[in-house]
Amino acid sequence: MTLDETHDPARRSWVASANGHADFPIQNLPLGVFSTENGPTARGGVAIGDQVLDLAAARRADVFTGDAEEAATLAAEAPLNAFLAAGAGLRRALRAQLSSLLTEGASARVALEPCLVDRAACTMHVPATIGDYTDFYAGIHHAVNVGRQFRPDQPLLPNYKHVPIGYHGRGSSIVVSGTPVRRPQGQRKVPTDDVPTFGPSRRLDYELELGIWIGPGNELGEPIAIGDARAHIAGLCLLNDWSARDLQAWEYQPLGPFLAKNFATSISPWIVTPEALAPFRIAQPPRPAGDPAPLPYLTDAHDQAEGAFELELEVLLHTPCLKAANLPPHRLSIGSTRHLFWTIGQLVTHHASNGCNLRPGDLLGTGTISAPTPDGFGSLLEISAGGTAPVTLASGHTRTFLDDGDEVIFRARGRRDGAASIGFGEVRGTVNAAG
Amino acid sequence: MTLDETHDPARRSWVASANGHADFPIQNLPLGVFSTENGPTARGGVAIGDQVLDLAAARRADVFTGDAEEAATLAAEAPLNAFLAAGAGLRRALRAQLSSLLTEGASARVALEPCLVDRAACTMHVPATIGDYTDFYAGIHHAVNVGRQFRPDQPLLPNYKHVPIGYHGRGSSIVVSGTPVRRPQGQRKVPTDDVPTFGPSRRLDYELELGIWIGPGNELGEPIAIGDARAHIAGLCLLNDWSARDLQAWEYQPLGPFLAKNFATSISPWIVTPEALAPFRIAQPPRPAGDPAPLPYLTDAHDQAEGAFELELEVLLHTPCLKAANLPPHRLSIGSTRHLFWTIGQLVTHHASNGCNLRPGDLLGTGTISAPTPDGFGSLLEISAGGTAPVTLASGHTRTFLDDGDEVIFRARGRRDGAASIGFGEVRGTVNAAG
Repeated sequence: MTLDETHDPARRSWVASANGHADFPIQNLPLGVFSTENGPTARGGVAIGDQVLDLAAARRADVFTGDAEEAATLAAEAPLNAFLAAGAGLRRALRAQLSSLLTEGASARVALEPCLVDRAACTMHVPATIGDYTDFYAGIHHAVNVGRQFRPDQPLLPNYKHVPIGYHGRGSSIVVSGTPVRRPQGQRKVPTDDVPTFGPSRRLDYELELGIWIGPGNELGEPIAIGDARAHIAGLCLLNDWSARDLQAWEYQPLGPFLAKNFATSISPWIVTPEALAPFRIAQPPRPAGDPAPLPYLTDAHDQAEGAFELELEVLLHTPCLKAANLPPHRLSIGSTRHLFWTIGQLVTHHASNGCNLRPGDLLGTGTISAPTPDGFGSLLEISAGGTAPVTLASGHTRTFLDDGDEVIFRARGRRDGAASIGFGEVRGTVNAAG
Repeated sequence: MTLDETHDPARRSWVASANGHADFPIQNLPLGVFSTENGPTARGGVAIGDQVLDLAAARRADVFTGDAEEAATLAAEAPLNAFLAAGAGLRRALRAQLSSLLTEGASARVALEPCLVDRAACTMHVPATIGDYTDFYAGIHHAVNVGRQFRPDQPLLPNYKHVPIGYHGRGSSIVVSGTPVRRPQGQRKVPTDDVPTFGPSRRLDYELELGIWIGPGNELGEPIAIGDARAHIAGLCLLNDWSARDLQAWEYQPLGPFLAKNFATSISPWIVTPEALAPFRIAQPPRPAGDPAPLPYLTDAHDQAEGAFELELEVLLHTPCLKAANLPPHRLSIGSTRHLFWTIGQLVTHHASNGCNLRPGDLLGTGTISAPTPDGFGSLLEISAGGTAPVTLASGHTRTFLDDGDEVIFRARGRRDGAASIGFGEVRGTVNAAG
């Protein structure tokens, strides 16, 4: 993907907080849906530093022209499904014009300054109506780590390196960052029990994933060629696939996870576009000798050359005790998206390869992303070795799985020499006691 | 469930074709969404004999009063989500008033006769926007039959009789009866192959299920008690969970079926209400000695007393050769819904037991319903014993799985002494060649 002046690391914004901002400098410009106390109607906005540019207000200020005006009209409207459906052309036009309008010295500053809202005063919403949500399993180190616990004799099943394994998740329980998550109840049976009991999960966990927002999508019966997959990817977010491990172990055979997952999935509110992520694209890491090559329907030179990403992923745990002691959150892991076995283009193409129709606003999860080493594992199941190796916090307390009151925070950042760093913002969620 | 005058088998309609109609006598009154060549706007209607009562037209004819008027206003509007959300009270009021208005001798005939549309001239639509679709596995004979093929050593897994096993399916590819189904392509690997190949499924199958339309639903984090489950069931339909067995065998571990199923799911267009089905309710069949009792969260005296159904299920196969020879469709099976291991109330309560929110218009599948004997098996995988025992048709041809051009037809009927028989209509689908 070619870089253009919107990626220029020297470009500064007249929104002062954007310059050097860890997440939202002028090189990012992610889209989301927000409301405020004074403006309770949910509407589209763009994050810039500590501010949100209200796109509906900016439209009324008459600063956009041509395709960017059409794009801003769509992106001002919540939910963002029509904007996602419009595809890359309009999205790029909006980015280019927003970048110009927000650049230091731009004459539009006078018209746009009144369209800025303090980000801290915004309530964020799930940005699009999610028709269907699919969760993949593309983090190979996670698959090996978890497989070893569930199936010690065969951690990685024979299909893993051929099939981008995925399953359908629940759309209704996808919530935006900050929404509390109630500990689920369910059937739990440990090997020493004769029969299951029903009660609150005792092994509540998070899973660190990226979410993929689907753009235009395909008609039923019409697959998406791998060379066309990126045309259907509208952006990325962070995704916490909350998981009740005790429910999962007992229910998941033979049809996969169900109630262990569908009580809540949290996402970060900002859609980080493929354009903003262009500097952080990398070639699909080479596969070890002996690994099968992807089948032809999953193979494309462009996708192999720059279909993967190098994004740093961080997981933090904040507990009532750490908060009471004024201690900072505990960093549980720091990893990278480079450990995904499949590109997101391969996930999209595989999903549609049987003719399954993807629709604008559908969401895909990558699956849990773990690094090869424990400091980069993407779940407590892996970090605590199935609950056998507790994590010790600075407060002196320990964790194997999540306690009530615990808050889980994910962050993601792109950093590269010669490029401005950008971030995804956060996805946060606090565990409430079972009802 | 108490029967009332709407169930009276002696009640006749002034719509002559309704009297003695196999599916839609005046005792049924199912709801659906239709359009016509002259009236291309999709709108709500009620099936009565060979006719559809156009509810929008009937509303304008000013024949409804009170709650029934409010219900008719909602049910006239496509999609039917708002009507489903309204719950049992309005639905029952509409049924009672429709039954009176359509009864032989009713003075409303003059006003309503112009509101009837020939059912044969109607294009039917998926009746509600389906937010999430979940497929269960409650047909125990199917679970045993299929389990024996996939896991000869352990056909029924240890969790089956404790957990209503289910998994999430795909909402986007749910299509209404009559929509052709394109044979999916995908990764296929038979044990004698070293590596998988990509191509059209060679083992395309159907699965015979009931669909359950969700009514009001629950808030995230708030389970549905088993005693309240029926308040959230708005009606039933027939459901064909098309399945590509070769794709399924290769992809399904460890996260369950995905591309083997999500290329298409066909449903019958009419929502048959719990009120219409009241005469066909039966007690949950007793479990064999030694079977575990359901856990308390799944146990309710009313649900056990009348939470199951006795509905006859029929599967027909019509092939290009049978059609060319003017031969009738081949009956593949005749079974019954009494073979479901869990009541639909138990499915609803289990689904929400972890706080997962069900929304109006969500759809649940029961899972394939097979009888204990081969003449009532609900899939070709079972009927052909995994492709080893071909079915011979009257044309002299054989089938193990579905060929291109084959049409699969499901029907369901309630029959009971002292009650008028009702039916679901059909769900039909013809297999098109892979694209």
